[in-house]
Amino acid sequence: MANKAVQDFYPESLSYCYGCGRLNEKGLQIKSYWDGDETVCEFKPQPHHTAIPGYVYGGLIASLIDCHGTGSAALAIYRHEGRQMDSDPPVRCVTASLQVQYLHPTPLGQVLQLRGEIKEVKGKKVTTEITLSADDQVCAKGEVVAVQVDEAWIAKYFSK
Amino acid sequence: MANKAVQDFYPESLSYCYGCGRLNEKGLQIKSYWDGDETVCEFKPQPHHTAIPGYVYGGLIASLIDCHGTGSAALAIYRHEGRQMDSDPPVRCVTASLQVQYLHPTPLGQVLQLRGEIKEVKGKKVTTEITLSADDQVCAKGEVVAVQVDEAWIAKYFSK
Repeated sequence: MANKAVQDFYPESLSYCYGCGRLNEKGLQIKSYWDGDETVCEFKPQPHHTAIPGYVYGGLIASLIDCHGTGSAALAIYRHEGRQMDSDPPVRCVTASLQVQYLHPTPLGQVLQLRGEIKEVKGKKVTTEITLSADDQVCAKGEVVAVQVDEAWIAKYFSK
Repeated sequence: MANKAVQDFYPESLSYCYGCGRLNEKGLQIKSYWDGDETVCEFKPQPHHTAIPGYVYGGLIASLIDCHGTGSAALAIYRHEGRQMDSDPPVRCVTASLQVQYLHPTPLGQVLQLRGEIKEVKGKKVTTEITLSADDQVCAKGEVVAVQVDEAWIAKYFSK
């Protein structure tokens, strides 16, 4: 399988998330990929995603870290279980907790890069550390604890 | 002065924040008020602010907590200094760190209430604890550490 985004394998009815749902036309539609042992996501904020003039809104930064965190958690569970992303049952995680430290104002107008490091996969719980950079400057760091939603729950919504 | 939102006193050029800027037409335009010794904010998510079907997107929850946290910090600084919100210099805070715990899925389709408790005002740094509730059920809790941006920085952008 070529390097594909985990969000492209979410079941249709779980693909409307504002942050990462490929079917939410008003959403951010972020994508999370493996890059070696790290996960990556790139996103270019729009002009209205401003906070103070010229800089990116902190809530968007939190949203990107959140959604790349849950995407990274799903990637990690597939790899941990030695499974391909098109195998059943599909993996979908939700956020249990999110921490963000704003280290440096994030400039608007360029592509942001998020990199995720999987710290722990423990049962259904995955802890990921995320950095968000602009032009190789780390602007924010975050930790996302994500939890896999169980198969019964997935089945309820699963309409592939 | 009647009970007004702190965001209505932000200088014009600092009022384009996606979360709380009254002049950002595409933004959320949240408002933060005092209610006794707590701060309050109400917001009704739109249908596209979904995560899993029927529930609110976690990134929006983080955004609301973030912006109500910085708004609450500004309210707290005015009160701490015994000043009215229309006095100079205007107070504007940015987020240093944000923590969010997702305790319960947040239902979509109703008004969410955020309540802030000021934990500490220490120089330019304000720590606030925020709860986010739907129908009196606490769905998320957060802590926001916000920092007042200094007067020189304000003056640079200030165009009242």
